[in-house]
Amino acid sequence: MGFDHLLADRTRAMDVNVIREILKVVSQPGMVSLAGGIPAPESFPMEIMRDLTSIVIDKYASKAFQYDPTEGFGPLREALVDYLRQKGIKSTKEEILVASGSQGVLDAIGKVLISKGDLVAVEAPTYLGALQAFTPYEPHYVRLDTDDDGLDPASLEKALDRGGIKFIYLVPTFQNPTGRTITLERRRQIAAIIKKYNALLVEDDPYGSLRYRGQDIPTIQSLAPGNVVYISTLSKVFAPGLRIGFCVAPELIRKWLVIVKQGTDLHSSTFNQALAAEYIAGGFLERHLPNIINLYRPKQEAMLSALDSHMPDDFTWSRPEGGMFIWAEGPRGLDMEKLYWKAVEKKVAFVPGKYFYTDPGEGMETMRLNFTMADEKTIDWAIKTLSECIR
Amino acid sequence: MGFDHLLADRTRAMDVNVIREILKVVSQPGMVSLAGGIPAPESFPMEIMRDLTSIVIDKYASKAFQYDPTEGFGPLREALVDYLRQKGIKSTKEEILVASGSQGVLDAIGKVLISKGDLVAVEAPTYLGALQAFTPYEPHYVRLDTDDDGLDPASLEKALDRGGIKFIYLVPTFQNPTGRTITLERRRQIAAIIKKYNALLVEDDPYGSLRYRGQDIPTIQSLAPGNVVYISTLSKVFAPGLRIGFCVAPELIRKWLVIVKQGTDLHSSTFNQALAAEYIAGGFLERHLPNIINLYRPKQEAMLSALDSHMPDDFTWSRPEGGMFIWAEGPRGLDMEKLYWKAVEKKVAFVPGKYFYTDPGEGMETMRLNFTMADEKTIDWAIKTLSECIR
Repeated sequence: MGFDHLLADRTRAMDVNVIREILKVVSQPGMVSLAGGIPAPESFPMEIMRDLTSIVIDKYASKAFQYDPTEGFGPLREALVDYLRQKGIKSTKEEILVASGSQGVLDAIGKVLISKGDLVAVEAPTYLGALQAFTPYEPHYVRLDTDDDGLDPASLEKALDRGGIKFIYLVPTFQNPTGRTITLERRRQIAAIIKKYNALLVEDDPYGSLRYRGQDIPTIQSLAPGNVVYISTLSKVFAPGLRIGFCVAPELIRKWLVIVKQGTDLHSSTFNQALAAEYIAGGFLERHLPNIINLYRPKQEAMLSALDSHMPDDFTWSRPEGGMFIWAEGPRGLDMEKLYWKAVEKKVAFVPGKYFYTDPGEGMETMRLNFTMADEKTIDWAIKTLSECIR
Repeated sequence: MGFDHLLADRTRAMDVNVIREILKVVSQPGMVSLAGGIPAPESFPMEIMRDLTSIVIDKYASKAFQYDPTEGFGPLREALVDYLRQKGIKSTKEEILVASGSQGVLDAIGKVLISKGDLVAVEAPTYLGALQAFTPYEPHYVRLDTDDDGLDPASLEKALDRGGIKFIYLVPTFQNPTGRTITLERRRQIAAIIKKYNALLVEDDPYGSLRYRGQDIPTIQSLAPGNVVYISTLSKVFAPGLRIGFCVAPELIRKWLVIVKQGTDLHSSTFNQALAAEYIAGGFLERHLPNIINLYRPKQEAMLSALDSHMPDDFTWSRPEGGMFIWAEGPRGLDMEKLYWKAVEKKVAFVPGKYFYTDPGEGMETMRLNFTMADEKTIDWAIKTLSECIR
């Protein structure tokens, strides 16, 4: 006799991570993966890691290895105040919470806010990791319309007007999966709408610093600070394996995020938070970020050129000014998952877009393409190969 | 208008961590704390930390800073197989999951198993951190009787016989808060009972390696491996700030622990897991553990002597062979929280025992005393001062 009868009801709503299942094929020898969403290892500041660990051990000694407050390591919270100010986000040390990756913030938000059956509004398509964080708390998802300029404010207002939305979850800048960025005009409209309805918006911003062209756009948080939980991470500008995410949140939400985090993991790694504190406060991040951008920009340009050169006329794709992804759409009726298995035979992997939608049957003809892991020549070959599979 | 109306129902069941509130007083200057449950910083192997980080950076390079599988860093899981074998626990790499502290395992267990209203059986008294992990999933607690030999097997059988218990949570060795250890005879009875009822038992073993006298006792996991989730941590034998816990679990439970952990924090810090892997596999843990034991043994002996010398006749206390805590009980009718505030005035802090009980009103006359943080002389002074407050 097994233990199936012991599983909590919530497990019925939870699927194994499909991207992960797909990535099993991806690890086959010789596979070129445009499927992942992970930073290139060459983007990590490996040349300073040894020095950073020395700095931390010298400066903090055993304190860097001891239990620490749930809210986060003091010097890191202080460093993040400056870091966020440069992004136009005003905060105090007390307003910043550190978590185990931005995933840790997303889980805590789900735990604090979602009772079974509650409504959570998300973009169509949206970030899969957020769904994986929220779904165990058994919400119903309300689908918000998007286009090339990101979330359609009218769709948001309609959803809020209907009522019962616990919170809205958005990735406004270089979205995962589409790479799209919500325009400033729309951000202003969204800020006005959430203020009008006293709604709570979760702004997830993992990619904002990875801008290859164009001008920074203000965060929605900066336009409606009282209504936004702003989340970001050091995974894309330092190292994802250190699992350092953080958020700025309205007071009541913040208080509860700390209480639930204490039950979830007590606090995030003190040592890694100390490394992050020195990485930011020591000016290393500021000096290293251009290297990351210079690494990714040509990869993204290579992918956009390859798409221009090779893709059939009935395909369209996003042209993001930053981030890690390009979103391509084929003609209606195309089943991108079929194409996926064909492409895998030719040693190219991507993620069929349907997995990023909460409504079944949507996005069948879409795909997410990542450009951070392969080199420019390989990207061109992979897109050419994909195009051949399509024809 | 605030956001109170947005909070999930579960927040109603969750209190702010009381120990934490008490620790606020503890940080006052000059306070001698017997309240905490944290390792002495002198127990950390600081002299090898720099070398360990070098070893990890040399050996794993960027891999130690990249995203990694949810299950845990391969070399750490391998090292833990050997480590657990020395503790009499047979496992394979695949059966071991790494988590963000043992707290991370406890949260995942709650998420996988507890639906609102489910029954979870715990010792009276039990570990507060486990309650903080489980309570957000809204269980009802079933109270199990304990005495100086730990859990009373008859009480367990009675609870299982009544039915509906999702799992049993125990700290069988040097329990937090009592320091008590379940005898081998009782462990055999408990193993037989959980097999008979096909029950699932969560065996939390953070302190098992901290034995100052006497012989190791087999884990319940080794007596009923198919019915036990065995949890341990490196927080007490390496460094708590690295947040490395782990578990060995039956297959179905393990599968679900991985799925929920993916939504909670994707995976635990790769870098810290690599440090832990090298700490164990390089023989550092084996060489360092005697230092930790030699640090704590005289502290514990000092506290036991001080209790013998100073405490009033109507007090009794546990005499653990290891761990971090001693449990003292005063006469019926004593309100230990009143004594707490008196003692704090005299600059001595401890934890009133009632906070470790799930039934309100129980344990009013009990207290938890920690001996890992103060030196022997201070421990004697603190116990003497406590005794004076009591009289």
